[in-house]
Amino acid sequence: MSRIAFIGLGNMGGPMAANLLKAGHSLRVFDLAPALVAGAVVAGAHAAIDAADAVVDAEVVISMLPASRHVEGLYLGDAGLLAQMPAGALVIDCSTIAPACAQKVAAAATARGLQMIDAPVSGGTAGAAAGTLTFIVGGEASALERARPLLQAMGKNIFHVGASGAGQVAKLCNNMALGVIMAATGEALALGSAHGLDPKVLSQMMAVSTSRSWATEVCNPWPGVLENAPASRGYSGGFGNDLMLKDLGLAAEAAMSTGASIPLGELARNLYAMNSRAGHGGLDFSSVVKLVAKDL
Amino acid sequence: MSRIAFIGLGNMGGPMAANLLKAGHSLRVFDLAPALVAGAVVAGAHAAIDAADAVVDAEVVISMLPASRHVEGLYLGDAGLLAQMPAGALVIDCSTIAPACAQKVAAAATARGLQMIDAPVSGGTAGAAAGTLTFIVGGEASALERARPLLQAMGKNIFHVGASGAGQVAKLCNNMALGVIMAATGEALALGSAHGLDPKVLSQMMAVSTSRSWATEVCNPWPGVLENAPASRGYSGGFGNDLMLKDLGLAAEAAMSTGASIPLGELARNLYAMNSRAGHGGLDFSSVVKLVAKDL
Amino acid sequence: MSRIAFIGLGNMGGPMAANLLKAGHSLRVFDLAPALVAGAVVAGAHAAIDAADAVVDAEVVISMLPASRHVEGLYLGDAGLLAQMPAGALVIDCSTIAPACAQKVAAAATARGLQMIDAPVSGGTAGAAAGTLTFIVGGEASALERARPLLQAMGKNIFHVGASGAGQVAKLCNNMALGVIMAATGEALALGSAHGLDPKVLSQMMAVSTSRSWATEVCNPWPGVLENAPASRGYSGGFGNDLMLKDLGLAAEAAMSTGASIPLGELARNLYAMNSRAGHGGLDFSSVVKLVAKDL
Amino acid sequence: MSRIAFIGLGNMGGPMAANLLKAGHSLRVFDLAPALVAGAVVAGAHAAIDAADAVVDAEVVISMLPASRHVEGLYLGDAGLLAQMPAGALVIDCSTIAPACAQKVAAAATARGLQMIDAPVSGGTAGAAAGTLTFIVGGEASALERARPLLQAMGKNIFHVGASGAGQVAKLCNNMALGVIMAATGEALALGSAHGLDPKVLSQMMAVSTSRSWATEVCNPWPGVLENAPASRGYSGGFGNDLMLKDLGLAAEAAMSTGASIPLGELARNLYAMNSRAGHGGLDFSSVVKLVAKDL
Repeated sequence: MSRIAFIGLGNMGGPMAANLLKAGHSLRVFDLAPALVAGAVVAGAHAAIDAADAVVDAEVVISMLPASRHVEGLYLGDAGLLAQMPAGALVIDCSTIAPACAQKVAAAATARGLQMIDAPVSGGTAGAAAGTLTFIVGGEASALERARPLLQAMGKNIFHVGASGAGQVAKLCNNMALGVIMAATGEALALGSAHGLDPKVLSQMMAVSTSRSWATEVCNPWPGVLENAPASRGYSGGFGNDLMLKDLGLAAEAAMSTGASIPLGELARNLYAMNSRAGHGGLDFSSVVKLVAKDL
Repeated sequence: MSRIAFIGLGNMGGPMAANLLKAGHSLRVFDLAPALVAGAVVAGAHAAIDAADAVVDAEVVISMLPASRHVEGLYLGDAGLLAQMPAGALVIDCSTIAPACAQKVAAAATARGLQMIDAPVSGGTAGAAAGTLTFIVGGEASALERARPLLQAMGKNIFHVGASGAGQVAKLCNNMALGVIMAATGEALALGSAHGLDPKVLSQMMAVSTSRSWATEVCNPWPGVLENAPASRGYSGGFGNDLMLKDLGLAAEAAMSTGASIPLGELARNLYAMNSRAGHGGLDFSSVVKLVAKDL
Repeated sequence: MSRIAFIGLGNMGGPMAANLLKAGHSLRVFDLAPALVAGAVVAGAHAAIDAADAVVDAEVVISMLPASRHVEGLYLGDAGLLAQMPAGALVIDCSTIAPACAQKVAAAATARGLQMIDAPVSGGTAGAAAGTLTFIVGGEASALERARPLLQAMGKNIFHVGASGAGQVAKLCNNMALGVIMAATGEALALGSAHGLDPKVLSQMMAVSTSRSWATEVCNPWPGVLENAPASRGYSGGFGNDLMLKDLGLAAEAAMSTGASIPLGELARNLYAMNSRAGHGGLDFSSVVKLVAKDL
Repeated sequence: MSRIAFIGLGNMGGPMAANLLKAGHSLRVFDLAPALVAGAVVAGAHAAIDAADAVVDAEVVISMLPASRHVEGLYLGDAGLLAQMPAGALVIDCSTIAPACAQKVAAAATARGLQMIDAPVSGGTAGAAAGTLTFIVGGEASALERARPLLQAMGKNIFHVGASGAGQVAKLCNNMALGVIMAATGEALALGSAHGLDPKVLSQMMAVSTSRSWATEVCNPWPGVLENAPASRGYSGGFGNDLMLKDLGLAAEAAMSTGASIPLGELARNLYAMNSRAGHGGLDFSSVVKLVAKDL
């Protein structure tokens, strides 16, 4: 059993920490929101008074934060965690951030004799709660082997996709494709509906045909098609439109940094941006269908 | 067992007719290519000398033709089949055509006391051979019930999506979403590859994540990822780029006819058009990845 | 001076007819709206009781109608004008319609020994009133020469761009480019505004730089930049969003009919469709900027 | 007459420096390419042995460099020019770079008691040679007034569009709109050509109609339409495809930094990226028409 510092206890980090506790690990936790820390303590964690306090004696530091700047702020600089961590400790950053940022922090970790992997996840809050997340890992194989038992306590699939930053690139590739697929599925259902078809029947057909996807089967964007999808509860919960917008922005930056072209990915980015401007930034990203469907 | 006239014995129609013969039905067949007729005769069909000759005594007429103009040419007009068919016969048109054309032919059939369903398919040549096609049916329920035993001899799933023309609309919705999903998957794999990721590992991850689709799992557009995909044999076989281009054009026309907007669908149409202009019109539609991937 | 039948006295047709009267021609006019006929009578025209009555004794028939179906309805069929017109008369259709429709009517005219040109216009209601329209003509040179004095009474520039239908194709090319340019200008002004720039100063710079266009100089989409532009009066007047949407749809159909690709043109079509769905279909088409600009 | 240090003597900087010399100013010049320095010396400049040597005694430093990293490298850091310049000197950076980079260098200049304006240009190499450039200026009014006589020696129009960085934002807005307009004009001409129209006649019509632009009148993308346009000499000379690609990338980053959406701008970026991948990166950006036109 490992001594783990866990930083970031939000919608994703909270249930991930709970699964580590269930597996018998010892956790010192920190979050800027005291209520989230208190929740983890109830589940068996020790409360740290700040991030530096959390890493005292830690063998492993796990972080789950919103964006690149939070990750850089946590680890880098004279007061950053890399300067506070015990020698030989392992960093597992599960945040979805810019690949270049992941590489920068990993290089700083290496310079201090620490190991680090980027391990962004797929599976959403439901996967975090059920312990069925997919981890998409970039970094050295030896670091991944140290992390593996902990990742297995929180998830089901682990993919080692390359060196530092590769986990973030792969996550962006997945989310870019997802963002396009969701919006395209919305276009298809709206087109069918405009011709008098029932989006539920159309979705059932698509779900067993060549256009099948997570967007038809799990998170269908049309209200009433799937009872448990965000679309059927006013697009609440789920993965926010503005989070998808952020990920598509990271994908666009990644494309531009290599001269790649992602015409559908960038058009999708603009669709989510227009949906955000229409006041739907806080809704589930499947609400992008509102741009093209009458009366939704 | 039914007396069936089967018109159109190409890559799809040929194996579909073969499956009807295997199920014990009696077929009179016609195709403009004598070699295709000869092939069906070997499998047990009777050769008709022309389409009109094929429908003599037919209880059911099944057609599988390339485009709207062929379907209109076959059925309408003074010399068309609707004027030649026995009273009470049933028409099953499995071609993928414009919804308005399907409605026009069905209305003409009704005016002559005949029944007609539009029943375009999903599943490709592999599904046609294996008898696992999905039929997407528009028309009256009673007509579908008459057709059901025949459809079951050729396929696995049958979806009744609405009145005449609805099968075509649903097929276009599926293919439009598929066209976008394929091109977006290509963008994601090219983006990962440009950052040094292995498209095979990336595809394996995506196949169990939220961007999973037929395009990652069955017809992966990157050469070498899936041994049996067209991409791994020079993009030969499969569903041609120019057929996808045709279907996206039909989807665009369907969108314009109702004032719907399909921004991703129409951008995808243009990507397939540019791929066609680059000389890849006859390749599998997954070759659209060539537009965005270096050295493919 | 010619004996002219003028059909269609709306925002464009009304002032065009007035300019012909001013030039001394004799006009018999018809419109479905009696008030519009009455207005032309005040200006010196003779009221016809229907379209057929208008063409009695006419040397030239001029029409200015909303869409393809109106033009076909007016001229074709047993009761159509082509069957009523005096032998040798000339048809000048100034409507913006599908090129295929223009060719169909012209072929029918030729079959009856009549001449016809398609002569859609550029210049808007202001150009119609001022007699400064641009005529974009398709048809035989000899027919254009007969029409030229009349076109010169209504406009300033006359371009002979090809055979029957070519005028319509060229008009669509112009309007497609215009639709893209307007929306792109809106994006540029919104981008500048989001960074704190004054859209008026930005527009003044652009108007003398490489991105200059009619959209920056005459019909600027940002309120307050140009006093006389629709944007400065709540996007009222001008060329309606849904008319641009119609023209972009015709351009898309023209592209699909030849396998051409117009990726920007079709994306623009979808932007105008989304603007229409947002309730702005009746506003000037420059209101498309609302999709991308905060607080407009 | 001013003592000026001029850094960067390429296709743009060279003729700009020559115009300053013609106006009687004293120039110390530097470029990494000795041949370019030699050329300026012939025109009357003094050769500096490096950038630091150029700014000795300078009242004004003018730079014209390829990209953000060159500008940061020149001015910032302990060995950067800001640390070498005489007190009170004025910096005029005419490069097209990221707005954030311009703001960063200007802030560093202010911190050292220097003034700086960003003054990117429009007008191309022809405008640089003729002294008819447009300067798009961001920075304090007092700094612009000091710069004005020098800008007037090199150009015709001067626009003060806002504070530091605003010149860069406005330049990007112009170039983004231009990039879209050029590609859309290419689509229109290709669409007309596919229908049998002569692109030259079509261009003449468009040039006096609502779709008129610099792309129809000055830099027409179709070979043979304008004798002096790059398209008529194999797309050589002019503004390179990859420079437009770079500017559209900066525009996309600027949009993402404020949550703005520029759907046409980002689609255009991808079109230029695809044109670059097709091997046309070094051609004039009007070669983007090759993506959509048969046989060009």
